[in-house]
Amino acid sequence: MTEPYTAGSQCPFCHPDVRDYAFYENRGYLAIINIAPVLPGHSLVIPELHRASLTVLNTDEMCAFMETARKATIILMKAFDTDAFDWSVQEKAEAGQSIEHLHLHIVPRLKNDLDKPGDWYPLVHVNDEELIDGFNRRRLSLQEKEIIVGRLRKVADAMEF
Amino acid sequence: MTEPYTAGSQCPFCHPDVRDYAFYENRGYLAIINIAPVLPGHSLVIPELHRASLTVLNTDEMCAFMETARKATIILMKAFDTDAFDWSVQEKAEAGQSIEHLHLHIVPRLKNDLDKPGDWYPLVHVNDEELIDGFNRRRLSLQEKEIIVGRLRKVADAMEF
Repeated sequence: MTEPYTAGSQCPFCHPDVRDYAFYENRGYLAIINIAPVLPGHSLVIPELHRASLTVLNTDEMCAFMETARKATIILMKAFDTDAFDWSVQEKAEAGQSIEHLHLHIVPRLKNDLDKPGDWYPLVHVNDEELIDGFNRRRLSLQEKEIIVGRLRKVADAMEF
Repeated sequence: MTEPYTAGSQCPFCHPDVRDYAFYENRGYLAIINIAPVLPGHSLVIPELHRASLTVLNTDEMCAFMETARKATIILMKAFDTDAFDWSVQEKAEAGQSIEHLHLHIVPRLKNDLDKPGDWYPLVHVNDEELIDGFNRRRLSLQEKEIIVGRLRKVADAMEF
């Protein structure tokens, strides 16, 4: 187990480029695509400011975080034409956290997308050394990233939140 | 895959006995122990009223749900002397949901509690036919349930939320 990323230049979620992957933004929280998705649409919700743990958020911050997550989920459900999804948060290395900047995984699910419904989860942990979740997992190309982010932004813009 | 439980007498989370397993309560949401835990302290946060999906909650309900979850996590971290945990939500059978009443899993984690950090997750899906997550998994005895609920309630009562 390598050391988790910390705040500052080494934290991929503190990097300004992360906004290129954002498709929804709400009160200091961003919904971004995972550039090495375990399944199509795999996304993350993160605070813009570096926060290591959800336990340190105050009530208002927690509400903003989770309302962003709920709305990001609705956008993803619309975009992927499903009502099935998984959410997960890992905190600390013992729990499988690789990047020590609070992030919630959202994975849209489709019927028979994997042999067993739980098969996506170990993939998140295949490795924990690369930026934004993955090196062994295939990364999206620049073009793929632009297409998916553009599509999700369009769905988000059409939402009546 | 069997049909998920629906509201009413068949929904284990709508059963009044569920309150016996509650260690924290906040604005219509309960934190309860999982009676067939994948690891010690495995708990669930549920709405008292039957809700199938977090996407149908309004902003205020979502805040209450997640603030309850955040505080339940703090209670569990204190009780199990750790700062590591996993959260997960599954919605719909495609995602591994077995009981169709919104529930968020909280699993306190300790160093080397499992071979790999992600190993807890498949255990949640070992079977999906029994009440409150599990038949093949060992269920807590009545005495064990009383001990853990009592301990968590005591920690909760001492919190300055």
